[in-house]
Amino acid sequence: MASRPPSPSQRRRASYASSSVSLFVIPGLPEIRKGHNLAKRTALAARRAKITFENGDILVVAQKIISKAEGGVLRLSTVQPSSQAIALGKKLSNDPRLIEVVLDESRRIVRSDRVLIVETHHGFVCANAGVDHSNVRGRDFVTLLPKNPDRSARRLAAALSKETGKRLAVIISDTFGRPWRLGLTNVAIGASGVPALVDLRGTRDRNKKLLRATILAVADELAAAAGLLMAKSAGTPVVVIRGYRYPFVEDPAARIIRPPHEDLFR
Amino acid sequence: MASRPPSPSQRRRASYASSSVSLFVIPGLPEIRKGHNLAKRTALAARRAKITFENGDILVVAQKIISKAEGGVLRLSTVQPSSQAIALGKKLSNDPRLIEVVLDESRRIVRSDRVLIVETHHGFVCANAGVDHSNVRGRDFVTLLPKNPDRSARRLAAALSKETGKRLAVIISDTFGRPWRLGLTNVAIGASGVPALVDLRGTRDRNKKLLRATILAVADELAAAAGLLMAKSAGTPVVVIRGYRYPFVEDPAARIIRPPHEDLFR
Repeated sequence: MASRPPSPSQRRRASYASSSVSLFVIPGLPEIRKGHNLAKRTALAARRAKITFENGDILVVAQKIISKAEGGVLRLSTVQPSSQAIALGKKLSNDPRLIEVVLDESRRIVRSDRVLIVETHHGFVCANAGVDHSNVRGRDFVTLLPKNPDRSARRLAAALSKETGKRLAVIISDTFGRPWRLGLTNVAIGASGVPALVDLRGTRDRNKKLLRATILAVADELAAAAGLLMAKSAGTPVVVIRGYRYPFVEDPAARIIRPPHEDLFR
Repeated sequence: MASRPPSPSQRRRASYASSSVSLFVIPGLPEIRKGHNLAKRTALAARRAKITFENGDILVVAQKIISKAEGGVLRLSTVQPSSQAIALGKKLSNDPRLIEVVLDESRRIVRSDRVLIVETHHGFVCANAGVDHSNVRGRDFVTLLPKNPDRSARRLAAALSKETGKRLAVIISDTFGRPWRLGLTNVAIGASGVPALVDLRGTRDRNKKLLRATILAVADELAAAAGLLMAKSAGTPVVVIRGYRYPFVEDPAARIIRPPHEDLFR
């Protein structure tokens, strides 16, 4: 995806000068299955919890329930591992069928030393292509990342806005590891209605000095904030962020992917 | 720093099941200078803004004001660049005196292709060793990262707790870039009173499946959340996070640094 120049509103730092933000979960979402209408179920769970949405609320939604609703779930018992997957499975002490699925979801293997770090077809660099065992019923099932998480975010934002009568933004998140730093953090893999990146280059700091290299990954910070309320086992895959000031723009999370030719660590 | 096994309380996921969190800035902090008592000034600014601290509040503090209070500010005009700094300055079109300072703060150059990515003496891998021009008075000045950000966090947490009578946690944050993803996010470089990493390995997800590789970088997610209220030009270097449930532990942010022998991208 081509990098777009920031809009004038994105450049205006004042737009982002929130002085308080609140985050809360939407409790009571049912287990999501293929074909479920996520917008309707989210709106219903919110009504039952007496949550009234406000214009500008950002809903951060765990990738897992998007994948389940979209049918991005696979039975490992149906997978025939290739010889490459079998060899990698031996090397990494992992299920060769899982590895076959990971390879299917990948454009390129980045590292296969201790874990399988790949570049997905979307361009995300992450462990196991985001293919995940956790919070799926049955040991035989894994979830895949949504095919096009930005499109999923746009559709969900549109459906939620229609359902609630409010202008809502959506971020689809997953937990990714990082080189150099231990631990996973929640990041944005899809976005609609909220800036993915905010370019402050050309603006000035408090001492009127020109900021040179300051592009903030706002969607990732929003996802990370929501991650605090999304402990894997808590069953709260939707978190609402309220009070954050931002310009309402379509800025796909795919824009956060560092273009390969600019990436020094591939 | 040696990796410590997580405490039983860190393992208990229930401890982290917050259902809402709020974040707000402390407005009206004066410009910080060497020797200023940051705890007193923060407590005073809070009182003036009618903010009453609560037990468990987490104060995320931008590295910049810690460095200023500790005197971690340098005049570039006093710096004599080495021949290596002069050569790198030409290659990177940057001030050789700045590069000299960066090299001084570094253990190792990781990349010097377009920007200078180094490993600092602390072990952080980041651009320009965190040496920064922005929000420092005068073009001639730069700030350095605190010598020991975990110690700075512990001291500030102790002083703030004494000043306010509440048990407060402190995270010292800075904005770092990432490979693979564009944009900076706020991360924890120092911490006191709050878990840096939470190890969920050995716990089970909602479907009773064992979680295998889930270590969450909670301090980084807290820092990122606060980053939403710390736009470079906003003059709000202290953000309070309230309502996040966590065990009160001493868990240095240095523990987040991935040990070099485990790092596939150095």
